[in-house]
Amino acid sequence: MNTDKKKAVVLLSGGLDSATVLAVARSQGFAAYCLSFGYGQRHAVELEAARRVAEAQDAARHLVLSIGLDAIGGSALTDAIAVPKAQAGTPPAPGIPVTYVPARNTIFLSYALAWAEVLGTGDIFIGVNALDYSGYPDCRPDYIQAFETMANTATKAVVQGQVRVRIHAPLIDLTKAKIIELGAGLGVDYGLTHSCYDPPAHGFACGRCDSCRLRQRGFAEAGLTDPIRYWPQ
Amino acid sequence: MNTDKKKAVVLLSGGLDSATVLAVARSQGFAAYCLSFGYGQRHAVELEAARRVAEAQDAARHLVLSIGLDAIGGSALTDAIAVPKAQAGTPPAPGIPVTYVPARNTIFLSYALAWAEVLGTGDIFIGVNALDYSGYPDCRPDYIQAFETMANTATKAVVQGQVRVRIHAPLIDLTKAKIIELGAGLGVDYGLTHSCYDPPAHGFACGRCDSCRLRQRGFAEAGLTDPIRYWPQ
Repeated sequence: MNTDKKKAVVLLSGGLDSATVLAVARSQGFAAYCLSFGYGQRHAVELEAARRVAEAQDAARHLVLSIGLDAIGGSALTDAIAVPKAQAGTPPAPGIPVTYVPARNTIFLSYALAWAEVLGTGDIFIGVNALDYSGYPDCRPDYIQAFETMANTATKAVVQGQVRVRIHAPLIDLTKAKIIELGAGLGVDYGLTHSCYDPPAHGFACGRCDSCRLRQRGFAEAGLTDPIRYWPQ
Repeated sequence: MNTDKKKAVVLLSGGLDSATVLAVARSQGFAAYCLSFGYGQRHAVELEAARRVAEAQDAARHLVLSIGLDAIGGSALTDAIAVPKAQAGTPPAPGIPVTYVPARNTIFLSYALAWAEVLGTGDIFIGVNALDYSGYPDCRPDYIQAFETMANTATKAVVQGQVRVRIHAPLIDLTKAKIIELGAGLGVDYGLTHSCYDPPAHGFACGRCDSCRLRQRGFAEAGLTDPIRYWPQ
């Protein structure tokens, strides 16, 4: 690890998108300080994936915070609400699904902002994308821009002119297929990643939730083979 | 409790300012959903004060979240850094002090935004003030406005037009003395509140940290007696 590298905080869920973003950050010369959250999500197995991905991509550090969003509730990912499923190949239903978690990216980016300040950097990477994005409002360019503007009023480091906050969202305009092509070109091992909202058994993805179906369609459109294991349909 | 009342999330630290804000919210007809955080702060006794204040002011609910900011660090309030002290009556040193916690209000407001969405409201109250404010950047009007703008792009409830987020900061232009006069007029029992950054013993305030000295000056200027106990100097 070259300690002279510029630092960036990379939000790392352990999914396909954030694994790609980590590779993008490293390809741009950043030392990656990866940040993951245990927030009462059903799919806590994604934290194991985050650890694998951070290690495989030589993260400078990986911090996992427990933040108890389940006490607030309001989502199928944290509450006892069924995750919607459909046959493989079916596009997601229109509208914002019940897997939406209230203010999740705002909370995640706020912690990233705090850690970035402690690390002495303003660079934060997040793997949102506005095309194949499941309809979440906090994945849109307007939102990311508004967060960046707010962050540039919020901290001591900003007010004192030491850093300028920049929210890097390099996937925001890409389809899932393009994301996979980008990551594959950067050597991402997608076999280490985890996307399923509701895994039927350890080591298997369901293949039927929105997240699995978007992932499968992306690999198909990219003409690549998805290396993870899906539960037999 | 009249369940037809409009709801508001009130950030409640257990200090003088947030106890006053809670009274303001209730005086405006809101049912108050109080939100407090255990964030690894030295002065965790403030959570006891928050519970007392919420109960005394008939909060509709009081949610305390443990959010482990100490894992991020960067502040005398969470790390093993000495809290600055001075003789009673000394004004705070200029500049942003070491008690600054990176991105604290951004993190607190983000959770409030999440809870407000689950409760079906956009009204959030916070006790920041920009005059006697210890120099924290996330207590300024520009910051509060930028957070509100960001929040109005961030959530499902906003995007679907169900609510508009409003960050109420009714103390932002007031001196500490004016805040105390306001709260006293609304019947706030300041004997239940806690302000000290570094209490020397249970039930006592140090009288020498910035927070104690601002509080003492406020009571003196308001011509009122501070009902809490200070450690003999």
